[in-house]
Amino acid sequence: VEKFYAFPAPAGVNYAAQLEKFVAYHAEDHRRVVCLTSGGTRVDLEKNTVRFLDNFSTGSRGAACAEAFLAEGYAVILLHRPGCMTPFARHLSDGATGRYVDFKLMDNLSVEESGKVVVNTNSCKLARAVREYSKVKAANRLLTIPFESLVQYLHLLRAASEALKPLKRNALLFLAAAVSDFYVPVSEMAEHKIQSRDGPLEMKLQQVPKILGSLKQCWSPEAFVVSFKLETDLSILLDKARMSISKYGVDLVVANELRTRYEKVTLVTSGDVQEVTRIEGSDAELDDELVAAVMAR
Amino acid sequence: VEKFYAFPAPAGVNYAAQLEKFVAYHAEDHRRVVCLTSGGTRVDLEKNTVRFLDNFSTGSRGAACAEAFLAEGYAVILLHRPGCMTPFARHLSDGATGRYVDFKLMDNLSVEESGKVVVNTNSCKLARAVREYSKVKAANRLLTIPFESLVQYLHLLRAASEALKPLKRNALLFLAAAVSDFYVPVSEMAEHKIQSRDGPLEMKLQQVPKILGSLKQCWSPEAFVVSFKLETDLSILLDKARMSISKYGVDLVVANELRTRYEKVTLVTSGDVQEVTRIEGSDAELDDELVAAVMAR
Repeated sequence: VEKFYAFPAPAGVNYAAQLEKFVAYHAEDHRRVVCLTSGGTRVDLEKNTVRFLDNFSTGSRGAACAEAFLAEGYAVILLHRPGCMTPFARHLSDGATGRYVDFKLMDNLSVEESGKVVVNTNSCKLARAVREYSKVKAANRLLTIPFESLVQYLHLLRAASEALKPLKRNALLFLAAAVSDFYVPVSEMAEHKIQSRDGPLEMKLQQVPKILGSLKQCWSPEAFVVSFKLETDLSILLDKARMSISKYGVDLVVANELRTRYEKVTLVTSGDVQEVTRIEGSDAELDDELVAAVMAR
Repeated sequence: VEKFYAFPAPAGVNYAAQLEKFVAYHAEDHRRVVCLTSGGTRVDLEKNTVRFLDNFSTGSRGAACAEAFLAEGYAVILLHRPGCMTPFARHLSDGATGRYVDFKLMDNLSVEESGKVVVNTNSCKLARAVREYSKVKAANRLLTIPFESLVQYLHLLRAASEALKPLKRNALLFLAAAVSDFYVPVSEMAEHKIQSRDGPLEMKLQQVPKILGSLKQCWSPEAFVVSFKLETDLSILLDKARMSISKYGVDLVVANELRTRYEKVTLVTSGDVQEVTRIEGSDAELDDELVAAVMAR
């Protein structure tokens, strides 16, 4: 971990002053602050980047949970990957695919005679989301910070954790981002686009340093840390979740299986295991249940 | 190439009937039809996909060129990767980063007393884009087909090329998508998420079959085919462009260098080389110049 951070920081991670100011503002009101991470990280394979490795993540869980925390009065620092779903904005389009400014959105726009561009929608969800968003922004309760690459993400997470440290038990880290396990260190990266004429491509990726231990031991020791595990193979999921707790001191692990993750998640702590399921027929999302269960800890 | 297509087609590529109907509609009016591809392709590394390899592409060239072709009266089949920039919709947000439904967009929305959601914009570009889009849709001149993976892309491109065949010289293929050179065949793919505890990850990727030859020889022999080359290393760019012409029979190659691609592109044909540059101070985009130069051939 130390070796990783000894390398010069990449561009786009200079948010220390903004983070400190945001935390100080809410510390005064004794408001709880959550740093919520969302979306996948990009791993560049070339210095002049044409190709990259990515992690599948719609960001829907992070977006919904951010809204839930805001509704509960938290201040939210959102580290998010552009292109993944974002709180409030997700209501602009329909369902899980509405992350992009595309034809689906165009089909819902019309121009009035005055030249005004209007969003056509039958539901009042969007209007409510726009109002909620302005309210939250006006109260300075939402700080959004974008990341693209894994390296940016790891630098931003350290900066945010350190900024949260003075809040002690009023700080929460909710690490829903899909972080790559492998990467190519800059020192091993190809300068130019890798050529295809030379036959098959062989790549060797190094393991990403495990930063959860440093987070709990140094960066923000008193913060309540919630991490996420996603596996496609159910048989190893709970073991891996328990390992995060025993090895790194994480307070709670949200264990997801890829196939059923919108129906059910399992909360694992050092003491017990709790299943959270979506309430059938209710309007509430699984994410609201999840945030409520985390807050109850 | 034949071996590749002998594998069962993936989900999401069943557009043959729609393509045929679209082409027949415009064949009757002797309208020219362009199949324009845009965005990067995804290469899955696992069957239950968590990780994938991707190609960097904003899709801005494809989006702008699609608008230019539509303005010139063409009918457009757009094979596009969701998340990349799309024609008309790109004017909803500002500049090259406005591809996502996110906070930038939210900041431009307000709710009127009636509950109507309005897009706040000072420019008339968006209103013009919304009107143009409705006009083009009403005239059935735009067929949009999304792809995610490389395998889907290759199946859709073959289907579109074959659908264009009856149009003969009235068909144009404008292949601006950033297509991966490497992939993992399904037969070599891991079933589950690759685990990180076993040390560094070694991956072997196979070369993607070169389909341009089949396209020119079999799928749509009389269509005018424009392909794109993007390199970060200028010294090999023109040679690679010429190779596409001599080896696959492509009619024209648009050669891009990563760093300068918004300022300048080079058109390479079997006979000559032509530089197209953005006209300083003019409102026209480089893409308008590019489409005009291609149409002049």
